Amino acid sequence: MDEHAIRQVTEAFLAAWNTHDMGAFAALYSDDADFVNVYGMHWKGRDVIGESHRALHETIFKASRLSATRTEMRFLRDDVVVLHMFWDLTGLQRPDGTPVPDRRGILLHVLERSAEGWRIVATQNTDIVPPPA
Amino acid sequence: MDEHAIRQVTEAFLAAWNTHDMGAFAALYSDDADFVNVYGMHWKGRDVIGESHRALHETIFKASRLSATRTEMRFLRDDVVVLHMFWDLTGLQRPDGTPVPDRRGILLHVLERSAEGWRIVATQNTDIVPPPA
Repeated sequence: MDEHAIRQVTEAFLAAWNTHDMGAFAALYSDDADFVNVYGMHWKGRDVIGESHRALHETIFKASRLSATRTEMRFLRDDVVVLHMFWDLTGLQRPDGTPVPDRRGILLHVLERSAEGWRIVATQNTDIVPPPA
Repeated sequence: MDEHAIRQVTEAFLAAWNTHDMGAFAALYSDDADFVNVYGMHWKGRDVIGESHRALHETIFKASRLSATRTEMRFLRDDVVVLHMFWDLTGLQRPDGTPVPDRRGILLHVLERSAEGWRIVATQNTDIVPPPA
Protein backbone atom coordinates (compact mmCIF):
# COMPACT_ATOMS: atom_id res chain seq x y z
CA MET A 1 0.00 0.00 0.00
CA ASP A 2 2.86 2.36 0.82
CA GLU A 3 4.62 1.36 -2.36
CA HIS A 4 1.49 2.24 -4.29
CA ALA A 5 1.21 5.60 -2.49
CA ILE A 6 4.84 6.41 -3.31
CA ARG A 7 4.29 5.56 -6.97
CA GLN A 8 1.38 7.96 -6.90
CA VAL A 9 3.72 10.70 -5.62
CA THR A 10 6.18 10.09 -8.46
CA GLU A 11 3.33 10.05 -11.00
CA ALA A 12 1.93 13.26 -9.52
CA PHE A 13 5.43 14.78 -9.74
CA LEU A 14 5.56 14.04 -13.48
CA ALA A 15 1.95 15.13 -14.03
CA ALA A 16 2.50 18.44 -12.20
CA TRP A 17 5.63 19.08 -14.25
CA ASN A 18 3.97 18.24 -17.54
CA THR A 19 0.88 20.35 -16.84
CA HIS A 20 3.18 23.06 -15.43
CA ASP A 21 1.04 23.19 -12.29
CA MET A 22 3.53 24.38 -9.72
CA GLY A 23 0.91 24.51 -6.98
CA ALA A 24 0.43 20.76 -7.36
CA PHE A 25 4.21 20.34 -7.67
CA ALA A 26 4.93 22.21 -4.43
CA ALA A 27 2.18 20.30 -2.60
CA LEU A 28 4.21 17.09 -2.97
CA TYR A 29 6.88 18.56 -0.67
CA SER A 30 6.99 18.89 3.09
CA ASP A 31 7.02 22.41 4.53
CA ASP A 32 10.74 22.35 5.21
CA ALA A 33 11.87 20.27 2.22
CA ASP A 34 15.20 20.75 0.45
CA PHE A 35 15.59 20.84 -3.33
CA VAL A 36 18.99 20.95 -5.06
CA ASN A 37 18.76 21.44 -8.80
CA VAL A 38 21.20 20.36 -11.52
CA TYR A 39 23.20 23.61 -11.15
CA GLY A 40 23.64 23.08 -7.41
CA MET A 41 21.08 25.74 -6.50
CA HIS A 42 19.64 24.92 -3.07
CA TRP A 43 15.99 25.78 -2.49
CA LYS A 44 14.66 25.47 1.05
CA GLY A 45 11.00 24.99 1.88
CA ARG A 46 7.87 24.11 -0.10
CA ASP A 47 7.06 27.73 -1.02
CA VAL A 48 10.54 28.51 -2.35
CA ILE A 49 10.59 25.20 -4.27
CA GLY A 50 7.23 26.08 -5.83
CA GLU A 51 8.12 29.69 -6.70
CA SER A 52 11.51 28.89 -8.20
CA HIS A 53 9.99 26.18 -10.38
CA ARG A 54 7.11 28.45 -11.35
CA ALA A 55 9.58 30.96 -12.80
CA LEU A 56 11.31 28.20 -14.77
CA HIS A 57 8.01 26.82 -16.06
CA GLU A 58 7.19 30.27 -17.46
CA THR A 59 10.42 30.24 -19.49
CA ILE A 60 12.76 27.33 -20.27
CA PHE A 61 10.37 24.59 -19.04
CA LYS A 62 7.19 26.19 -20.49
CA ALA A 63 6.55 23.43 -23.03
CA SER A 64 8.85 20.80 -21.54
CA ARG A 65 7.94 17.18 -20.96
CA LEU A 66 9.48 15.10 -18.20
CA SER A 67 9.30 11.32 -18.27
CA ALA A 68 10.72 8.65 -15.99
CA THR A 69 12.69 5.91 -17.70
CA ARG A 70 13.34 3.94 -14.50
CA THR A 71 12.65 4.30 -10.79
CA GLU A 72 14.28 2.45 -7.90
CA MET A 73 12.62 2.56 -4.51
CA ARG A 74 14.28 1.59 -1.26
CA PHE A 75 12.56 1.51 2.14
CA LEU A 76 14.97 2.61 4.90
CA ARG A 77 12.16 2.42 7.45
CA ASP A 78 8.51 1.58 6.91
CA ASP A 79 7.91 5.33 6.70
CA VAL A 80 11.14 6.57 5.07
CA VAL A 81 12.09 5.89 1.46
CA VAL A 82 14.99 6.71 -0.84
CA LEU A 83 13.93 6.78 -4.48
CA HIS A 84 16.05 7.24 -7.61
CA MET A 85 14.31 8.35 -10.78
CA PHE A 86 16.07 8.34 -14.13
CA TRP A 87 14.46 10.93 -16.37
CA ASP A 88 14.31 12.36 -19.88
CA LEU A 89 13.41 16.01 -20.44
CA THR A 90 12.34 17.21 -23.87
CA GLY A 91 10.71 20.34 -25.30
CA LEU A 92 13.05 22.85 -23.65
CA GLN A 93 13.12 26.30 -25.19
CA ARG A 94 14.76 29.72 -24.90
CA PRO A 95 12.57 32.79 -24.20
CA ASP A 96 12.50 33.49 -27.96
CA GLY A 97 11.22 29.95 -28.61
CA THR A 98 14.48 28.56 -29.94
CA PRO A 99 14.73 24.89 -28.95
CA VAL A 100 17.30 23.76 -26.38
CA PRO A 101 18.80 20.23 -26.55
CA ASP A 102 17.00 17.48 -24.64
CA ARG A 103 18.48 16.47 -21.30
CA ARG A 104 18.53 13.36 -19.20
CA GLY A 105 19.46 12.87 -15.59
CA ILE A 106 18.94 11.14 -12.31
CA LEU A 107 17.02 12.50 -9.40
CA LEU A 108 17.09 11.37 -5.78
CA HIS A 109 13.97 11.81 -3.67
CA VAL A 110 13.85 11.16 0.06
CA LEU A 111 10.24 10.67 1.12
CA GLU A 112 8.61 10.23 4.48
CA ARG A 113 5.14 9.29 5.55
CA SER A 114 3.52 11.82 7.85
CA ALA A 115 -0.03 12.17 9.13
CA GLU A 116 -0.90 13.78 5.76
CA GLY A 117 0.59 10.90 3.77
CA TRP A 118 3.83 10.57 1.84
CA ARG A 119 5.74 13.78 1.19
CA ILE A 120 9.09 14.50 -0.44
CA VAL A 121 11.50 15.90 2.15
CA ALA A 122 14.60 16.19 -0.06
CA THR A 123 15.31 16.12 -3.79
CA GLN A 124 18.66 16.34 -5.50
CA ASN A 125 18.92 16.38 -9.27
CA THR A 126 21.92 15.71 -11.50
CA ASP A 127 22.18 15.83 -15.29
CA ILE A 128 23.69 12.75 -16.90
CA VAL A 129 26.55 14.10 -19.01
CA PRO A 130 29.74 12.53 -20.36
CA PRO A 131 32.63 13.04 -17.93
CA PRO A 132 35.51 15.10 -19.37
CA ALA A 133 38.05 12.93 -21.23
CA MET B 1 25.82 11.80 20.73
CA ASP B 2 24.37 10.83 17.35
CA GLU B 3 25.10 14.31 16.03
CA HIS B 4 28.71 13.89 17.13
CA ALA B 5 28.89 10.44 15.48
CA ILE B 6 27.53 11.86 12.22
CA ARG B 7 30.07 14.68 12.28
CA GLN B 8 32.73 12.01 12.66
CA VAL B 9 31.42 10.30 9.51
CA THR B 10 31.65 13.55 7.52
CA GLU B 11 35.14 14.23 8.89
CA ALA B 12 36.19 10.68 8.03
CA PHE B 13 34.75 11.19 4.53
CA LEU B 14 36.97 14.25 4.02
CA ALA B 15 39.99 12.57 5.63
CA ALA B 16 39.62 9.46 3.46
CA TRP B 17 39.34 11.63 0.34
CA ASN B 18 42.33 13.76 1.26
CA THR B 19 44.56 10.80 2.13
CA HIS B 20 43.17 9.01 -0.96
CA ASP B 21 42.40 5.98 1.20
CA MET B 22 39.53 4.43 -0.69
CA GLY B 23 39.30 1.49 1.71
CA ALA B 24 38.46 3.93 4.50
CA PHE B 25 36.18 5.82 2.11
CA ALA B 26 34.19 2.72 1.14
CA ALA B 27 33.91 1.64 4.79
CA LEU B 28 31.70 4.67 5.47
CA TYR B 29 29.04 3.19 3.20
CA SER B 30 26.49 0.47 3.81
CA ASP B 31 26.79 -2.72 1.77
CA ASP B 32 24.00 -1.74 -0.59
CA ALA B 33 24.57 2.03 -0.70
CA ASP B 34 23.92 4.19 -3.78
CA PHE B 35 26.31 6.84 -5.03
CA VAL B 36 25.45 9.23 -7.88
CA ASN B 37 28.37 11.40 -8.96
CA VAL B 38 28.32 14.84 -10.58
CA TYR B 39 28.05 13.31 -14.07
CA GLY B 40 25.01 11.24 -13.11
CA MET B 41 26.96 7.98 -12.92
CA HIS B 42 25.18 5.63 -10.53
CA TRP B 43 27.35 3.32 -8.46
CA LYS B 44 25.61 0.62 -6.45
CA GLY B 45 27.13 -1.03 -3.39
CA ARG B 46 30.09 -0.32 -1.13
CA ASP B 47 32.59 -2.26 -3.25
CA VAL B 48 31.65 -0.54 -6.51
CA ILE B 49 31.71 2.86 -4.78
CA GLY B 50 35.19 2.11 -3.44
CA GLU B 51 36.59 0.77 -6.72
CA SER B 52 35.25 3.57 -8.88
CA HIS B 53 36.66 6.18 -6.52
CA ARG B 54 39.96 4.32 -6.32
CA ALA B 55 40.38 4.66 -10.10
CA LEU B 56 39.63 8.40 -9.91
CA HIS B 57 42.05 8.89 -7.01
CA GLU B 58 44.81 7.35 -9.13
CA THR B 59 44.21 9.98 -11.83
CA ILE B 60 42.21 13.24 -11.67
CA PHE B 61 41.82 13.22 -7.85
CA LYS B 62 45.37 12.00 -7.11
CA ALA B 63 46.49 15.22 -5.40
CA SER B 64 43.04 16.72 -4.83
CA ARG B 65 41.87 18.26 -1.60
CA LEU B 66 38.21 18.27 -0.57
CA SER B 67 36.94 20.62 2.12
CA ALA B 68 33.48 21.29 3.51
CA THR B 69 32.42 24.92 3.59
CA ARG B 70 29.07 24.22 5.28
CA THR B 71 27.07 21.22 6.43
CA GLU B 72 23.37 21.03 7.26
CA MET B 73 22.10 18.02 9.17
CA ARG B 74 18.45 17.05 9.50
CA PHE B 75 17.15 14.14 11.57
CA LEU B 76 14.17 12.48 9.86
CA ARG B 77 14.07 9.81 12.55
CA ASP B 78 16.38 9.33 15.51
CA ASP B 79 18.31 6.88 13.32
CA VAL B 80 17.91 8.44 9.83
CA VAL B 81 19.55 11.68 8.76
CA VAL B 82 19.66 13.82 5.61
CA LEU B 83 22.85 15.85 5.41
CA HIS B 84 23.87 18.48 2.86
CA MET B 85 27.56 19.28 2.52
CA PHE B 86 28.77 22.24 0.49
CA TRP B 87 32.30 21.53 -0.71
CA ASP B 88 35.35 22.95 -2.45
CA LEU B 89 37.66 20.70 -4.45
CA THR B 90 41.15 21.87 -5.37
CA GLY B 91 44.32 20.27 -6.74
CA LEU B 92 42.69 18.46 -9.65
CA GLN B 93 44.99 17.35 -12.42
CA ARG B 94 45.06 15.62 -15.79
CA PRO B 95 47.08 12.40 -16.20
CA ASP B 96 50.00 14.49 -17.56
CA GLY B 97 49.91 16.66 -14.44
CA THR B 98 48.28 19.68 -16.09
CA PRO B 99 46.07 21.42 -13.52
CA VAL B 100 42.28 21.35 -13.88
CA PRO B 101 40.14 24.24 -12.55
CA ASP B 102 38.90 24.00 -8.96
CA ARG B 103 35.30 22.92 -8.46
CA ARG B 104 32.63 23.46 -5.86
CA GLY B 105 29.39 21.67 -5.29
CA ILE B 106 26.79 20.33 -2.94
CA LEU B 107 26.48 16.76 -1.82
CA LEU B 108 23.52 15.04 -0.22
CA HIS B 109 24.16 12.15 2.15
CA VAL B 110 21.42 9.97 3.60
CA LEU B 111 22.73 8.21 6.70
CA GLU B 112 21.26 5.58 8.94
CA ARG B 113 22.31 4.12 12.24
CA SER B 114 22.67 0.37 12.20
CA ALA B 115 24.11 -2.06 14.73
CA GLU B 116 27.58 -1.11 13.40
CA GLY B 117 26.95 2.60 13.85
CA TRP B 118 26.15 5.38 11.36
CA ARG B 119 26.64 4.50 7.69
CA ILE B 120 25.97 6.42 4.48
CA VAL B 121 23.20 4.70 2.51
CA ALA B 122 22.93 7.17 -0.37
CA THR B 123 25.03 10.03 -1.74
CA GLN B 124 24.22 12.31 -4.62
CA ASN B 125 26.68 14.96 -5.75
CA THR B 126 26.11 18.02 -7.92
CA ASP B 127 28.62 20.62 -9.11
CA ILE B 128 27.63 24.23 -8.45
CA VAL B 129 27.84 25.89 -11.86
CA PRO B 130 26.20 29.00 -13.32
CA PRO B 131 22.94 28.11 -15.08
CA PRO B 132 22.94 28.89 -18.82
CA ALA B 133 21.85 32.48 -19.55
